[in-house]
Amino acid sequence: MAPDVSGKGILLKVDPIADAFRAEVKDGLAAPHRTPTLVGILATNASPSRFYADFTRKQCEGLGVRFILKEVGSAVKQNEGEEARSDGDGVEEAIIEANEDDNVDGIMVYYPIFGGQQDHYLQQIVSPLKDVEGLHSKFHYNLYHNIRFITPASLASTIPSSKVVQPIIDDIPPPGTVKSIIPCTPLGVVKCLEYIGVYNKILTYGDRAYGKTVTVINRSEVVGRPLAALLANDGARVFSVDIDSTQEYTKRPRPSNPTSARQYLPHHTSHLCTLSLEECLAISDVVISAVPSASYKVKTEWLKEGCVCVNVAADKNFDKDVRDKASIYIPAVGKVTILMLLRNLLRLSHYNDVSAPSGSEDIIPAQ
Amino acid sequence: MAPDVSGKGILLKVDPIADAFRAEVKDGLAAPHRTPTLVGILATNASPSRFYADFTRKQCEGLGVRFILKEVGSAVKQNEGEEARSDGDGVEEAIIEANEDDNVDGIMVYYPIFGGQQDHYLQQIVSPLKDVEGLHSKFHYNLYHNIRFITPASLASTIPSSKVVQPIIDDIPPPGTVKSIIPCTPLGVVKCLEYIGVYNKILTYGDRAYGKTVTVINRSEVVGRPLAALLANDGARVFSVDIDSTQEYTKRPRPSNPTSARQYLPHHTSHLCTLSLEECLAISDVVISAVPSASYKVKTEWLKEGCVCVNVAADKNFDKDVRDKASIYIPAVGKVTILMLLRNLLRLSHYNDVSAPSGSEDIIPAQ
Repeated sequence: MAPDVSGKGILLKVDPIADAFRAEVKDGLAAPHRTPTLVGILATNASPSRFYADFTRKQCEGLGVRFILKEVGSAVKQNEGEEARSDGDGVEEAIIEANEDDNVDGIMVYYPIFGGQQDHYLQQIVSPLKDVEGLHSKFHYNLYHNIRFITPASLASTIPSSKVVQPIIDDIPPPGTVKSIIPCTPLGVVKCLEYIGVYNKILTYGDRAYGKTVTVINRSEVVGRPLAALLANDGARVFSVDIDSTQEYTKRPRPSNPTSARQYLPHHTSHLCTLSLEECLAISDVVISAVPSASYKVKTEWLKEGCVCVNVAADKNFDKDVRDKASIYIPAVGKVTILMLLRNLLRLSHYNDVSAPSGSEDIIPAQ
Repeated sequence: MAPDVSGKGILLKVDPIADAFRAEVKDGLAAPHRTPTLVGILATNASPSRFYADFTRKQCEGLGVRFILKEVGSAVKQNEGEEARSDGDGVEEAIIEANEDDNVDGIMVYYPIFGGQQDHYLQQIVSPLKDVEGLHSKFHYNLYHNIRFITPASLASTIPSSKVVQPIIDDIPPPGTVKSIIPCTPLGVVKCLEYIGVYNKILTYGDRAYGKTVTVINRSEVVGRPLAALLANDGARVFSVDIDSTQEYTKRPRPSNPTSARQYLPHHTSHLCTLSLEECLAISDVVISAVPSASYKVKTEWLKEGCVCVNVAADKNFDKDVRDKASIYIPAVGKVTILMLLRNLLRLSHYNDVSAPSGSEDIIPAQ
C-alpha cells in the first residue's frame, strides 16, 4: 500500500482476510471427506435476503460446497391467479425437513422473517448439529461462559453444560473434544481484529485482547452481546452500549488492591456502567457499531485519536470523516462472516461424522 | 348465582376454576411421592415481580409444596454503603445452580428482567426438565406441532421431535409417554374456556373447540401465539391479531369443495388474513386480549352480542361496559395460571423420577 500522506486513517476492505479463510476452507474441503451440503432457506421476498442468498451460492460454488436454496413463503415466485404466499409460510417445515435430512450438513435461514421473538423461536428449531450460523442458544451459552471445547454429543442435549470451565491453555481442543461453534458475525469481527493486530499474538491464547478497551454499540443477542462477551472473554475491557444502558464487560474484577488487578475470572462478568457514550468513546481503542438504522451515526469528534472503527451494520454507522480520527476503518465485515459460516459448516460436518452413531465421542482425535 | 336482571353479562372470577385444580394438585401431592421443591428466581426490584413471588409462596405453602425464593441482582436488599446491584445480576448463575441441584424439581423466573431477546435467552437456559412455566422452545415446538405426548427422555434432546404426530384419540398418553408441558398462561386460559363450556365435551378430545371463532389480541411468543395455536389445534378458527397484521389459525384447510370442509390437519396452519380487528370481533364467539398497555381497550361496540371476553393482560384491555355486549367476562386468569404452574411442577417431578437414570423410558406407565 502506498504511504498515505493525507493524514487520514486506512480504509480497510476485508478481502485479504476473507481470502485467507477461503484458502483454509478450501484446504479443509480437499482433505479426504465428502462434499458438505448447505441448505439456505429463503422465506421472504426482501431484497437484502435474496442478495445474501445469491452471495452464499456464489461463495459455495467457488469453494465446491453444495448449496441448495429452498424458497418458501413470499420468496416463491407467484404464478398468475395463484393465492399470495406470506412471509415465512412453510419456513418451519423447511427447517424440520433439513434437520431430518441426513444429506444436509448445514442450515442457514435468511432473517428477518417474522422479526423478534418468532425469529428467535425459529433459531432454536434448527438442530445445533447443523446450525452453521451459531444462533442456537446452546452456542450463545457456551460463548457467554467461555466454554471453548465441547463434545459433539453435548450439542444434542438441552441441559446446559456445567459451568466448570476447562483451563484454556491453547486453542487445541483436549482429546475427545472439539471447538464450539461461534456465531458467525461476532466471530468475523474478531478475525478482523486479529488481522489488524488488536489481538496481540505475543499474549497468551485466550487473553490476547488484554489491555484493549472496546466499545460495542448495540446489545442484540445476535451480534452485540455475544461480540462484547467474546472480546471480554479474550481479555478486553468492553463497553456494551445500548439505547437504554451501558454495561461494562470484563473478566478482570475491579481491583480491591492493586496487586490482584491482573488476576482474572474464567469468563467475563458484566456490570452497569455510568459512563456516557461520549466518555466510553474517549477511552476506546476500538469502536464497533452494529445499529440497524440508516440515520444512526457515531460522532467522529467523540472518537479517540488513532482508534480502530468497525462497521458491522448494513447501514453506515460512521460518518464520512471517520478516518480523520480513526487509524483504521473497516466499513463492512460480511465477506469474512460468510467464510466463518462455511468454516462452521466444515466443522459441523466433521462433528456429525464422528458423533453419529452416538456414543463414539471417545474416538475423536484432537483437531 | 342469583339471576341478573340488569341485562348485563356475568362477571366471572376464576376462583372456582382455581379451586378445582388446587384440589387436583393436592391429591397429586398426597400420593406416595416426595414433596416437590420449586425455586423462584427474583432478579429485579419491580413490584409486580415481587408481588408474584409472594403469591407463588402463598400458593405453595397452602399446598405443601416447598418454595425457595432466590433473590439476586437488584432484588437483594442493599446494605448501606454497598455497591448497587443491577437488574438481573447473577440470574443466569442462579438458573444454572437450580438446574444442577437434584433437590430442585421446578424453576420459575420472574420476568421481565432484561427484556426482549436476553430474557428469551434465559428461558432457553432453564432445563426443560424443570421448566414449570413451559417457556422453553421445546414446549412451544410441541405445542405448535400439536405433539401432546412425549417421552420424558425427549426433553433432554435439542433435536426437535419428528413432525409425525400421533393420532389423538383421548387425553391418555400411550404407554411409555407422558403429557408435554404446556406454557402456563395459555393453558390457564384454555382451562377457563373449558369451564365455561366454550370447549364442548360432547365433541372428540382434541377437537372440542370446533365451531368456535376466537380472536386473540397480541401475538407474543409467551402468550398470544401459543394460545392461538393451542385453540386452533383444538379445532377453533382463530384470528391472531397483532399491531402489524392479522393471521388466521386453523387446522381445517379452506374448503375447495364443501364436502371436504370437515377434514382437518394434524395441527393448525396459519395464513395472513385481510379482516380488520372490527371485522374479526364481529364474528368472534370469544375474544381474548393480552396487550401489555394500560391505554389499550377493545371497543365494546365492536363485540358480537353474547360473546365471551377474557382479559389476560395485567392491565384491563376491556372497557367498563364490556358486559353490555359480553355474556361472560373474565377479568383475570392469574389464579388459574399459578395452578397450571404447580400442576406442571408435579408432572415434571414425576417425569424426572422416571427418566433418571436415563434410558428407562420404557418402564413409564401410562399416567
